[in-house]
Amino acid sequence: MFHYHTAGESHGKQLTAIVTGMPTGVSLLAEHINRDLKRRQGGYGRGGRMKIESDEVEITAGVRAGKTLGSPISLTVRNRDWENWQTIMSPDPGAITDKGVVTRPRPGHADLAGGIKYRHRDLRNVLERASARETAARVAVGGVAKQLLSAFGISIYSCVIQLGSVRACEETISASLENSFDDQPLRCPDPEAQQRMMEAVDEARAKGDTLGGLIQIVATGLPVGLGTYVQWHERLDARLAAAMMSVPAIKGVEIGPAFENATLLGSRVHDEIFYDTGKSQFYRQQNRAGGLEGGITNGELLVIRAAMKPLSTLRQALRSVDIHTKEPFEASRQRTDTCAVPAAGVVGETMVAIVLAQAMREKFGGDSLEEMREHYHAYMDYVQGM
Amino acid sequence: MFHYHTAGESHGKQLTAIVTGMPTGVSLLAEHINRDLKRRQGGYGRGGRMKIESDEVEITAGVRAGKTLGSPISLTVRNRDWENWQTIMSPDPGAITDKGVVTRPRPGHADLAGGIKYRHRDLRNVLERASARETAARVAVGGVAKQLLSAFGISIYSCVIQLGSVRACEETISASLENSFDDQPLRCPDPEAQQRMMEAVDEARAKGDTLGGLIQIVATGLPVGLGTYVQWHERLDARLAAAMMSVPAIKGVEIGPAFENATLLGSRVHDEIFYDTGKSQFYRQQNRAGGLEGGITNGELLVIRAAMKPLSTLRQALRSVDIHTKEPFEASRQRTDTCAVPAAGVVGETMVAIVLAQAMREKFGGDSLEEMREHYHAYMDYVQGM
Amino acid sequence: MFHYHTAGESHGKQLTAIVTGMPTGVSLLAEHINRDLKRRQGGYGRGGRMKIESDEVEITAGVRAGKTLGSPISLTVRNRDWENWQTIMSPDPGAITDKGVVTRPRPGHADLAGGIKYRHRDLRNVLERASARETAARVAVGGVAKQLLSAFGISIYSCVIQLGSVRACEETISASLENSFDDQPLRCPDPEAQQRMMEAVDEARAKGDTLGGLIQIVATGLPVGLGTYVQWHERLDARLAAAMMSVPAIKGVEIGPAFENATLLGSRVHDEIFYDTGKSQFYRQQNRAGGLEGGITNGELLVIRAAMKPLSTLRQALRSVDIHTKEPFEASRQRTDTCAVPAAGVVGETMVAIVLAQAMREKFGGDSLEEMREHYHAYMDYVQGM
Amino acid sequence: MFHYHTAGESHGKQLTAIVTGMPTGVSLLAEHINRDLKRRQGGYGRGGRMKIESDEVEITAGVRAGKTLGSPISLTVRNRDWENWQTIMSPDPGAITDKGVVTRPRPGHADLAGGIKYRHRDLRNVLERASARETAARVAVGGVAKQLLSAFGISIYSCVIQLGSVRACEETISASLENSFDDQPLRCPDPEAQQRMMEAVDEARAKGDTLGGLIQIVATGLPVGLGTYVQWHERLDARLAAAMMSVPAIKGVEIGPAFENATLLGSRVHDEIFYDTGKSQFYRQQNRAGGLEGGITNGELLVIRAAMKPLSTLRQALRSVDIHTKEPFEASRQRTDTCAVPAAGVVGETMVAIVLAQAMREKFGGDSLEEMREHYHAYMDYVQGM
Repeated sequence: MFHYHTAGESHGKQLTAIVTGMPTGVSLLAEHINRDLKRRQGGYGRGGRMKIESDEVEITAGVRAGKTLGSPISLTVRNRDWENWQTIMSPDPGAITDKGVVTRPRPGHADLAGGIKYRHRDLRNVLERASARETAARVAVGGVAKQLLSAFGISIYSCVIQLGSVRACEETISASLENSFDDQPLRCPDPEAQQRMMEAVDEARAKGDTLGGLIQIVATGLPVGLGTYVQWHERLDARLAAAMMSVPAIKGVEIGPAFENATLLGSRVHDEIFYDTGKSQFYRQQNRAGGLEGGITNGELLVIRAAMKPLSTLRQALRSVDIHTKEPFEASRQRTDTCAVPAAGVVGETMVAIVLAQAMREKFGGDSLEEMREHYHAYMDYVQGM
Repeated sequence: MFHYHTAGESHGKQLTAIVTGMPTGVSLLAEHINRDLKRRQGGYGRGGRMKIESDEVEITAGVRAGKTLGSPISLTVRNRDWENWQTIMSPDPGAITDKGVVTRPRPGHADLAGGIKYRHRDLRNVLERASARETAARVAVGGVAKQLLSAFGISIYSCVIQLGSVRACEETISASLENSFDDQPLRCPDPEAQQRMMEAVDEARAKGDTLGGLIQIVATGLPVGLGTYVQWHERLDARLAAAMMSVPAIKGVEIGPAFENATLLGSRVHDEIFYDTGKSQFYRQQNRAGGLEGGITNGELLVIRAAMKPLSTLRQALRSVDIHTKEPFEASRQRTDTCAVPAAGVVGETMVAIVLAQAMREKFGGDSLEEMREHYHAYMDYVQGM
Repeated sequence: MFHYHTAGESHGKQLTAIVTGMPTGVSLLAEHINRDLKRRQGGYGRGGRMKIESDEVEITAGVRAGKTLGSPISLTVRNRDWENWQTIMSPDPGAITDKGVVTRPRPGHADLAGGIKYRHRDLRNVLERASARETAARVAVGGVAKQLLSAFGISIYSCVIQLGSVRACEETISASLENSFDDQPLRCPDPEAQQRMMEAVDEARAKGDTLGGLIQIVATGLPVGLGTYVQWHERLDARLAAAMMSVPAIKGVEIGPAFENATLLGSRVHDEIFYDTGKSQFYRQQNRAGGLEGGITNGELLVIRAAMKPLSTLRQALRSVDIHTKEPFEASRQRTDTCAVPAAGVVGETMVAIVLAQAMREKFGGDSLEEMREHYHAYMDYVQGM
Repeated sequence: MFHYHTAGESHGKQLTAIVTGMPTGVSLLAEHINRDLKRRQGGYGRGGRMKIESDEVEITAGVRAGKTLGSPISLTVRNRDWENWQTIMSPDPGAITDKGVVTRPRPGHADLAGGIKYRHRDLRNVLERASARETAARVAVGGVAKQLLSAFGISIYSCVIQLGSVRACEETISASLENSFDDQPLRCPDPEAQQRMMEAVDEARAKGDTLGGLIQIVATGLPVGLGTYVQWHERLDARLAAAMMSVPAIKGVEIGPAFENATLLGSRVHDEIFYDTGKSQFYRQQNRAGGLEGGITNGELLVIRAAMKPLSTLRQALRSVDIHTKEPFEASRQRTDTCAVPAAGVVGETMVAIVLAQAMREKFGGDSLEEMREHYHAYMDYVQGM
């Protein structure tokens, strides 16, 4: 039921993903995916590499004439810079491994712990896979998930609500939840705050420093009843938390304004239940639960927020120690991104889309989109007629 | 590799858990587990039921003469109030299902969404399993995990760092990370704040309202190299996030002070790397990463914080709608807990223990504790000699 | 989606199973399960223990008033002889472990390999879990699966087609595939062969020897399209093979008459396809594929055969070696079963039922029986209208 | 722990596999894999396509300079005939789907059941993925598994022991278990039988018919203690059965001579246990258990046999029905293989290698080959010293 695996090193030949569990008959074109790949590379505060790249996906299996076949889908995103890395990164025994050797672990990265764990003497062998470059493969997978979801009227949005110490005001955020602000440099709903965010980026870049921030992901059009409370790992909140936290640099997650809710009285937090007799539908006047009660979608918007730490690769020097000589040194990089929070939003959309696609597949089963739709409509009719 | 499933309804005969993947030869007594079951029932702010209960585990398989057999472990926690519920909750067809019927969904609970999803006309059929009562079974499983971890010098602590709007000061928190404050009424490291927290509980109770808060879980003694960055769902941060978020009422999770880190510059956040030549060991002077870099333990303390929403069962009335008549009503309960944050800390310890036990099993393999220890020591010797 | 775990030692207090993934609203009574527990204990050739036992299940979670709740189902089968074993098998540290010690591994059992693997010095710690006693828990789980299947008109039958060197004739076997011959002492479709089988049992018993044989499992009422070819582990044949082979003493499995098919020409083996315009239905005139093509049900009867080795516990002496002294000795047991092939048939039904229940859940999804049925009927309508 | 997924259609651009769970530092070159890809294409009785192909793998991730990185390994096997199929099979919406349309299901294939299940109106959309072509990707994965196993002295062999009605004599089979007979046209250990097998192939080809047969897979060098009896799906016999049965056209599996064992007395079947004081080692004088007792390796050779049905694509006509018109027709193909049993042996080796690699990873854990080896040697020392 909608699973995926990715492979690929940051400077390897390509990223590869295999996606299983799609029903037959879903429209899927490379351009559906490329749009998000491009969005992932954008945002104010990116450095040089992002401009070079311009990722594109190739669909190498599972799709024929623009429709899914039901068989596993394989996706490839080539490394456009492969020629320059081939001699260093080649799988062949002739690869030159004494070039590009990394023995100096960077604070905040997997370098040191990964090197110890895997007994890598060249930390390049860690960082190549631990790199956030891998999220390009995930975004490609997310494109597949989004195509499935869109067949059921489900959409996913993301935006930046905080960057460094600058926060967008809650009013602007709540005012347009169904918007990804793709026309904005930081994809922030609050133009005034965005201006100050950009200044913060400029300031950090000047110092050779980096910034993190908060992203918000919103999913609309969800039926009541995805996920379940019956076993711990089947709860949708647990699965969303894992998915979000698996994104490199994301270290905090909340469903709805959970950290704020924790400070309030219960009578203020819990979303009272109302019924609209006209629409034959239950509804809420507020959504502090973020769309999930008991680990199940409750029909309100799904709202997730995640905290991204500042990028770990800094131009400014951080102290570290060479793993071989044990000599201290100061880690620094020439050129780098200052901030990638808008990109993290796109990756966050991806992770949410994947979890929701899984949950839809579980609830509605079916092997073709047509069959899955029949199941979906039968359920929605029942919900409506309750 | 260390998996578990639980079964049982809140007012059913018993909770049952099956735990797989323990090596042979680990000491395991009921009393190891009962201690945490008792801790889960404590804390200032609990109502009547907790006092009645006093849970005890029975080990019904997988252990002989105080040692694990390598076979699945089954654990039972009986419902001491079963006699009063038997006629309503019995599995037999003679059970009286028109008693105790619930048609009025409580905001903040799974009631409404669960009833729709599963087509339950009596919401008791939802709330019995969605109840936080299930966490008693998890705590029993956590007791098993902790026994394994303790054989490798790994300990887990929890405390309450915020309750409602009252926050413990960071100095008291950082000063004693390796302490669960079991002698304190709210298991809070800051005595002064704790006093105000208790007042907040009293005040909320008087109003028939409830409170949430923040808990902190700390694990000590972890080897470098648990978890991995190589595939998204294998990252330890992702797995910890899922585990924590699967606890009822937990809606937010962070590894280290992630939400604060998101507001700071990278140069301030990333933990610089040093080497102690005396101990032949890498170390950090700060631990803002919370012990995980790239989804791997880095040898520092693992520090996780989680946000618990206020309890959803209030004495004070919340508005809701009867699912059959669609008539509005005001939901209220006679007697209830006001706050269960200290208990959530114990459940949080459990979830962390389970994830760490899994990660230890994966890294070190082995079928007996003896064998697993040989593997562990070989690794630690290698780490030391790097 | 319909998973289960079991726990319990042969002479422990009880067997326990947890079953997840049942939809709500399925009828489930203890008596549905007890019938198969009883059938598992029967058959000509059983020794003393089977007569003592008379297993009964207790449903301790997941069912209320005779209907499934959607939450995990826990099942308990008590050991009626527990009082006699308690001092030896108790989980408490006070258990007397120098009684009942086994240091002499029996050929054909897990004793030796299990003892080495798990570093058990007392092989009782192996044989207690490796015992076929565990299949009583599986049969209980199978009872749950069968209740789900029966709601969709799917039935499962088993019979004994060979016992030792005596084989039932193919005509009698094919003549009544939809029959479990529960009124026959060896559940064999061929009365004449059965007579000789019983004589073979008597003869083997007289020599203190044991017998194996072949069982056949048939499932009827299956929709076309369960299982899939798209990924290796999702093929229904692979999953059925694993399930059957996981039964202790089953060492061979075939879908349809596969070992015979392997000796024939393709033109003889492959089931030609016909269409019945009256019934608007595809059909076959023979079913040598055993109901599966490409790992998918094709609408014909599912027919599986499995080879059971003779029981490994013999009264007659087999040579072995004491694991501590390394001295040779002759293994023998006072009282034992001579043959348990009919019982293996019941366990085989169970394993097939479990795999089919999983496959039905995957294809049709849904959270309540009602919903699952809507999906099922929509599909059957489509198939009919093709 | 050593998992894999494949993607790719028979006439698609390429097959892709992603393999996870390899430790670091294992030698892996394309040539290790290509050797088996070539062996898979060989054998007397293959038709034209096999000669065209000559598969070669490309390693696109997870390996650097001939050593595994610990990260997922991705493997690609291109379709050398892609240019001729591109217009029909392209993922782009411009693909010409009214060419190469298949509406006539072939008996013995997934065509009919798959078409119904997935609502494919063009059965090409079924057969492209259901084709045995996919096993080329598995063989590539098997090459990875074999490299891991060979680092622990484990080897895997296969041969053909029956082809159609011709059987190799047991003496020749038992005489050289550790041999794959790669220099023989049918990889059969019995030269005389092989001669008759080749005649049977010629005869079948002349009639436009096909043949199946039996293969035997042998693994040597296995430590005692892989797999376990503690939970049904962890038994090594169950996992091997699933793996073997997942191979297209394999419909029967036995561990050791299980179907024959079923006809014998227990005293004849069970392998008595002896101890060689010189070698400090337990041993057997016969191996009728096929190397597994209680679902665990017992230190003897692992011996598995599998039954392959005759190929389902025949030149000779079989009756079938057009899925759209419902008109009967006679299915036939111009050019095809007559027999692919030797190839199935290679695929069988692959599946066994994969399961054993998993079991080795589970038992010994570790993240680098070096670490895994330390664990392995510690265990072997313990076994030796028992």
